[in-house]
Amino acid sequence: QNVILINPFEVPKGQETETIVYWEAARDFLMEQPGYVSTELHQSIQPDAKFHLINIAEWESIETFKAATSKMRKELKQKPIEGMKFYPALYDVIRK
Amino acid sequence: QNVILINPFEVPKGQETETIVYWEAARDFLMEQPGYVSTELHQSIQPDAKFHLINIAEWESIETFKAATSKMRKELKQKPIEGMKFYPALYDVIRK
Repeated sequence: QNVILINPFEVPKGQETETIVYWEAARDFLMEQPGYVSTELHQSIQPDAKFHLINIAEWESIETFKAATSKMRKELKQKPIEGMKFYPALYDVIRK
Repeated sequence: QNVILINPFEVPKGQETETIVYWEAARDFLMEQPGYVSTELHQSIQPDAKFHLINIAEWESIETFKAATSKMRKELKQKPIEGMKFYPALYDVIRK
């Protein structure tokens, strides 16, 4: 049963573009991994939102997601962005 | 052009059920308002996630969303849940 990754990003002022470039490199790596289904990066309309960017992705299983992200941490060496914080977690839909 | 509301909730330990009941009352009110399209409440699979619940809803416009939520604040008197924090903001999809 597919799982949903929701990852809110706190983006330091002036680092919006760098953060999107950072995200695109991760997406390009992850979309090649088994179990990847889709992803949508959301940008806040109001500039003062706590989470300027939120990624919402779908994966075929918890296991394929964990395997892909641990492979990415080993193989995709990205310079972290000073002050950027993010809170990835997996979710199920419980109410509509 | 539709907008997406993403609302991460920090849920105090032991208050998960009360928070879902609180959310359901708000959903029942908002779904009757003009501009409402859909909503999905997400619950984290891991219990220790920072945001135990995240609501993702779609609205026809920023204006209809703002009108509906300000009407809700006036008409729907709900006892706030001690320690619950939430960070609603409107988003557009910028990358897939």
